[in-house]
Amino acid sequence: MTGRPSPLARPFPAMPEIGGLRIGCARAGYRDWDREDLALFAFPQGTTVAGLTTRSLCPSPEVELCRARLAGGRARALVVNAGNSNAFTGAAGRAAAEAQSAEVARLLGCAPEEVFQASTGVIGVPLPVARAVAAVRAAHARLGDATLERAAAAIMTTDTFPKGASAEALCNGHRVRIAGIAKGSGMIAPDMATMLAFLFTDAAVAPAFLGELLAEANQSSFAAITVDGDTSTSDTLLAFATGATGGTPMVGRESPGADAFAAALGDVCRALAVLVVRDGEGARKLIEVRVRGAVSDESAHRVAMAIANSPLVKTALAGGDANWGRVVMAVGKAGEPAERDRLSIRLGGVEVARAGAVAPDYDEAPVARHLAGETVEIAVDLGLGTGRAVVWTCDLTEDYIRINAAYRS
Amino acid sequence: MTGRPSPLARPFPAMPEIGGLRIGCARAGYRDWDREDLALFAFPQGTTVAGLTTRSLCPSPEVELCRARLAGGRARALVVNAGNSNAFTGAAGRAAAEAQSAEVARLLGCAPEEVFQASTGVIGVPLPVARAVAAVRAAHARLGDATLERAAAAIMTTDTFPKGASAEALCNGHRVRIAGIAKGSGMIAPDMATMLAFLFTDAAVAPAFLGELLAEANQSSFAAITVDGDTSTSDTLLAFATGATGGTPMVGRESPGADAFAAALGDVCRALAVLVVRDGEGARKLIEVRVRGAVSDESAHRVAMAIANSPLVKTALAGGDANWGRVVMAVGKAGEPAERDRLSIRLGGVEVARAGAVAPDYDEAPVARHLAGETVEIAVDLGLGTGRAVVWTCDLTEDYIRINAAYRS
Repeated sequence: MTGRPSPLARPFPAMPEIGGLRIGCARAGYRDWDREDLALFAFPQGTTVAGLTTRSLCPSPEVELCRARLAGGRARALVVNAGNSNAFTGAAGRAAAEAQSAEVARLLGCAPEEVFQASTGVIGVPLPVARAVAAVRAAHARLGDATLERAAAAIMTTDTFPKGASAEALCNGHRVRIAGIAKGSGMIAPDMATMLAFLFTDAAVAPAFLGELLAEANQSSFAAITVDGDTSTSDTLLAFATGATGGTPMVGRESPGADAFAAALGDVCRALAVLVVRDGEGARKLIEVRVRGAVSDESAHRVAMAIANSPLVKTALAGGDANWGRVVMAVGKAGEPAERDRLSIRLGGVEVARAGAVAPDYDEAPVARHLAGETVEIAVDLGLGTGRAVVWTCDLTEDYIRINAAYRS
Repeated sequence: MTGRPSPLARPFPAMPEIGGLRIGCARAGYRDWDREDLALFAFPQGTTVAGLTTRSLCPSPEVELCRARLAGGRARALVVNAGNSNAFTGAAGRAAAEAQSAEVARLLGCAPEEVFQASTGVIGVPLPVARAVAAVRAAHARLGDATLERAAAAIMTTDTFPKGASAEALCNGHRVRIAGIAKGSGMIAPDMATMLAFLFTDAAVAPAFLGELLAEANQSSFAAITVDGDTSTSDTLLAFATGATGGTPMVGRESPGADAFAAALGDVCRALAVLVVRDGEGARKLIEVRVRGAVSDESAHRVAMAIANSPLVKTALAGGDANWGRVVMAVGKAGEPAERDRLSIRLGGVEVARAGAVAPDYDEAPVARHLAGETVEIAVDLGLGTGRAVVWTCDLTEDYIRINAAYRS
């Protein structure tokens, strides 16, 4: 599926070793392509897991399996299939997913309930079970061979570059590492988590607390991005903590080092989320929308999302057009408390509108220069309260149409 | 702004004479174009009016004037400006709108409260008052010269063809006529009424009852269409009843002929709404989305709108791709009661998915033929209840991006 890399692509960063994590990749051949499309991740005994999945009411069987298995809080493996989402495939798809995780459990000598699973790609075609099982065996035979970069490449679909981010934190005298990879460039309007993102840490963290921190980090990262307002049937965000650094597991805010760990987790999630937007289908510009002065943070978030999801705002920015009237339109349609005559708007730091009309001394030249760049900042002040939010999106270009009008062909 | 007509365009229909209605058009020159861009409609004393306006919280001053004046229920004139929406223009815009309606009132010898007003076009630039007043004078001097077709052309912006529809009804022995015109092809996701649509009838109808019938007709017409999910700051739907046919005004459902009149009004609204979609920016296909089996009609409407607003569904249809998995995705993200394993989907009458998986005997060939045509039907059965809804939209093509990336330039 991948053509030229997005003009907003970033090189894959150097990633730390995560103690206890072993990776193997394989070619399942889910599509007619010449590349690896399955990644298997194995974890040592004692690894904890937490996760968030799509709020879609039509979730894939993989999402259902993850939801059920998250209750146990323990993980020994993660398997990811790219090219086929296995969503909306009824009993056949469910059986295929279960057969693949049963094989992983057999190979690693663990319970199927400790195997996590995600699939991404076309909806409505059952995962071909023979390929899925054979590829898992091949990946298992090579466990330890693959890097996170290679795994990040193996899980891509319409993605144009592999996405990774990492951070370190000092927790109670132990230096811990968090590494994450993500995929996704269309059907991105995560209502809970976006497409697929996986975090690995060698810290020791109790599953409930890991879940709490993950939910918090998600709010200002994956839940704050949108490419096209469409929410996937397969969105999955999972965090695995191997505990390889040793020490007492963190169990709550009061645990030594918890704040540093939470900050690092938030950094990795935010970095990955922005990379997903940078690979937004057809994207040529990264757009940051900041809203303040709302009656609450939630209200600010909804106004920011109304702007970030407006096709008219996004096409104007694709054209480098300082058409701030469309930002007004999006604020007006958001359904959140707003008063036209208190509204002010800045583009790239330049005030374009104030108190319900164009700014008296507005000069379009510096704004046009800002819009010609790779990163666009839209700041809206509603002038009502102290609620604020930041979300990220990309512009809407003819390439988005081209990619999606021909996706299956 | 207009280039070639939409491939979905319809010729302007023959329209009936509406007794009492006089029209004049003029060139205000709101943009650098060689065409009429102002239409003035004059009504006899006793004309009643009802209307619906945008739910946007950033409405134009014209919308605010209409809202205030609708309380009176009486109209003597309507003036429509095309090329400048006068929205988000603060005190200057408000003053320009008031000056224009004051001039209309002076020319016609009526109260300013009997003058209705709408403007459409770029947001954020105050209506140039000298041009607005001069053009109103020119149009007044030619009152009676223009047809509804010419007025429908004068109010276009990015529209590619003028839109009109009419119907007749026999009400208590009087044959009454309803004629309507509409404009709009982008920023179409009316939350109340869409862009601009104006209905004229020679029936005698009390304003409150006219408003009741209009709200009802709006539900299954303008409130059931979407081009891009963006709601305009200027949406306005107004109905004027001159009463030229004579007879006792209809005041409620029990009035003789009220049912026939309501049906005719509904027909005109639906026909105009579908014409607006047929002129959706970049549209090459008209898409009808039918949802049934929902827990309520409102729920069915929201599911239908989630499908109709999904960029991934709309780009797939632009490409003639039977990618029904994206319909599943849209149902899943709608946030309405749905159960994956009860869901079935038909495209062009062919069952593609049933009970949570692809239909066992699904053959893509007839679906591909259906999708190659000009009109596409998507039918979803949620299998939960008796709620149903129909909405209309268009496909999302590269031309939508091209039109909107360069709108102001």
